[in-house]
Amino acid sequence: MTLDSLSRDQIDAFLAEQQQAYAALQQAGLKLDITRGKPSAAQLDLSQDLLTTPVQDHVSGGVDVRNYGGGTGLAELRAIFAELLGVPVEQLLAGNNASLSMMHDSIVFALLHGTPEQPTPWRDGPVKFLCPAPGYDRHFAICEHLGIEMIPIAMLVDGPDMAAVREHVADPAVKGIWIVPTYANPTGAVVSEEVAAELAALQTAAPDFRILWDNAYAVHDLTEDHAKSADILGLCSAAGHPERPLMFASTSKITLAGSGVSFLAGSPANIAWYLSHTAIRTIGPDKVNQLRHAQFLGSAQGVLDLMARHREILAPKFATVLRILSERLAPHGVASWTEPKGGYFVSLDVVDGTASRVVQLAKEAGISLTPAGASFPYGKDPRDRNIRIAPSFPPLDELTQAMEGLTTCVLLAAAEKAVAG
Amino acid sequence: MTLDSLSRDQIDAFLAEQQQAYAALQQAGLKLDITRGKPSAAQLDLSQDLLTTPVQDHVSGGVDVRNYGGGTGLAELRAIFAELLGVPVEQLLAGNNASLSMMHDSIVFALLHGTPEQPTPWRDGPVKFLCPAPGYDRHFAICEHLGIEMIPIAMLVDGPDMAAVREHVADPAVKGIWIVPTYANPTGAVVSEEVAAELAALQTAAPDFRILWDNAYAVHDLTEDHAKSADILGLCSAAGHPERPLMFASTSKITLAGSGVSFLAGSPANIAWYLSHTAIRTIGPDKVNQLRHAQFLGSAQGVLDLMARHREILAPKFATVLRILSERLAPHGVASWTEPKGGYFVSLDVVDGTASRVVQLAKEAGISLTPAGASFPYGKDPRDRNIRIAPSFPPLDELTQAMEGLTTCVLLAAAEKAVAG
Repeated sequence: MTLDSLSRDQIDAFLAEQQQAYAALQQAGLKLDITRGKPSAAQLDLSQDLLTTPVQDHVSGGVDVRNYGGGTGLAELRAIFAELLGVPVEQLLAGNNASLSMMHDSIVFALLHGTPEQPTPWRDGPVKFLCPAPGYDRHFAICEHLGIEMIPIAMLVDGPDMAAVREHVADPAVKGIWIVPTYANPTGAVVSEEVAAELAALQTAAPDFRILWDNAYAVHDLTEDHAKSADILGLCSAAGHPERPLMFASTSKITLAGSGVSFLAGSPANIAWYLSHTAIRTIGPDKVNQLRHAQFLGSAQGVLDLMARHREILAPKFATVLRILSERLAPHGVASWTEPKGGYFVSLDVVDGTASRVVQLAKEAGISLTPAGASFPYGKDPRDRNIRIAPSFPPLDELTQAMEGLTTCVLLAAAEKAVAG
Repeated sequence: MTLDSLSRDQIDAFLAEQQQAYAALQQAGLKLDITRGKPSAAQLDLSQDLLTTPVQDHVSGGVDVRNYGGGTGLAELRAIFAELLGVPVEQLLAGNNASLSMMHDSIVFALLHGTPEQPTPWRDGPVKFLCPAPGYDRHFAICEHLGIEMIPIAMLVDGPDMAAVREHVADPAVKGIWIVPTYANPTGAVVSEEVAAELAALQTAAPDFRILWDNAYAVHDLTEDHAKSADILGLCSAAGHPERPLMFASTSKITLAGSGVSFLAGSPANIAWYLSHTAIRTIGPDKVNQLRHAQFLGSAQGVLDLMARHREILAPKFATVLRILSERLAPHGVASWTEPKGGYFVSLDVVDGTASRVVQLAKEAGISLTPAGASFPYGKDPRDRNIRIAPSFPPLDELTQAMEGLTTCVLLAAAEKAVAG
């Protein structure tokens, strides 16, 4: 029976039951972490050849990869990812180990120098970004750190709430929107072709509005079905806004999370703009690591084959999370959650006003969760209900324990709230 | 006989002779490049193990180097370079492949966020930097790109002209000075202990004045004698200005130029400040590459042993450059040059007003030189006399040809000027 259909006595009994379960949980002395979307050791082992296989022929396309230079990144690795991301290779740059850096730097360059369309530093006026939420906390941290005002936009199953987006882009201070188009962090939503086309065609007051298209999970399917990302570069070009999108991707969750290769795609003008600024801060990315990646991955198909092996490790973990949520929470009607077809997260909505309490209860029982509200701008979930679950890192048995414990905390917090009334 | 002691007829004859030599040079159809301080393939080969040797044990100090995290960089590599740079290991960060990026980002962070002493963004007011010249063109490019006004300061044999420095730091807009303390680019000068102590103790109008101490050539001796860099962190701390220095270094000219590891050292407050900003742009540097380096280099002594092998390759090249300059130019009194005991460059001063002409003549004879003026702020050598020679990259026979050709151009330009003058 769902919680809201219980009598007062039944609720009291339910609360007592959950308090007992929670006491037992605390006594178990757990030390578990489902905080961050980190690959597990087993996943990293899939790319162990990067650590052990000698580099073949360090001269690639006439370039000695060991020396300085090559700001665009290694051509043969860019070719592999151009195919996967559906962008022209000459419009794709390969960088160092963090696409987050490319996002951060793109915004810093705009703040300090303006854009190809408008060479007035963004920082000379107010700057606001649209932030579909729940979303990726590190995107929001970049905005907050750089003094960019964040406007929360509801994240729906097919992308951001476009009515709200349309309303806000009438403000010329609104310079951009964060989008994780495929298997969004944390909801797993996939931006539909229609929403992408609408984003591309939007009439914005800012002449240099940017879609920060973080395609972090472009090939990270959890099922046999591949969710192809919309062709945002093509859509924006066709709509007469070629400079609007900046696409980011990386191998962080393909090969090695801390030692991968990042990618940036954009219009020729955006690529020239980015290179003109990044050339001042580096004489080129680490081409040796890029060559290692090209030789290890081999081809676009090689990447997809590797992702299938990740799926074998990840899919059972997601299935476990969903099974436990379903078994333990569904009967009580105290939560809803996403069932992602890819990516790294399950987004759990608990009873309004109890997410912080759940996270606190879990912590006191030795289970680390992402702080409540982390997926919202300024860390503020207006309904205090969202919890991000990251199933990838712990081994399956630890994940199972953590989820059993988490659901106990969800039920206890819901019962407390129901009793308090 | 020196050129200025010749009669008019003798000068005419000398000019004719140099014109003939230059015509022959052009006919030789050379294609040589002594532009940049790039290691040669033979030098890169010294670190080939980085490309071919498997990484031993990817868990280092309890950290899986393959995964996210570890913003400070790998402890065991930092320990090696802390010893070499004479700084406490907890005050040394290891980053990705370009110390230039750490310099750029340090300045960008100060422009956008201020410093530990003064959290007002530098960009809210005018910002000026003192630029000892001739100096490193990429330092100057950072300033120019970021809108920082550059004030040229004469670079003397023991460091910058301190009288000029003292005068300018009375201006609160003067926020920093670039220093390459050891084997400076391009003169090879070594900042003396006395000058370093004076820089540390300077009374500056800006409360957060910075010494950007780019120790790029800390262990890059060309002779058996090691020029120990002054302990700028210790000197500044003792003088009551612990936050003043930011020290940079890298393995770019120790292991692989495009695929090394960068370092930043500073006071605890500066390290915390840098990490607080860089944590927003990355989840950590490439620790796999850092572990490779730690395992390849082994110890501080391992680095010094490797540098001795670089010296075996570099010293004959520098000797050749100096021999040709001496044989071909000294008799005519038309140039002076440095005789560096380390680093990557020889700084050549030709007849005033002829450096651009020399570079142009060389170019038309197939010899690429760094553009005249490149070693000065805004690319403007006030006396148009300085040429930076980078002997490292070409093989010895090509270097010899290039230097023979270059000296012909120097003599021809000097003769042209004498005839015109």
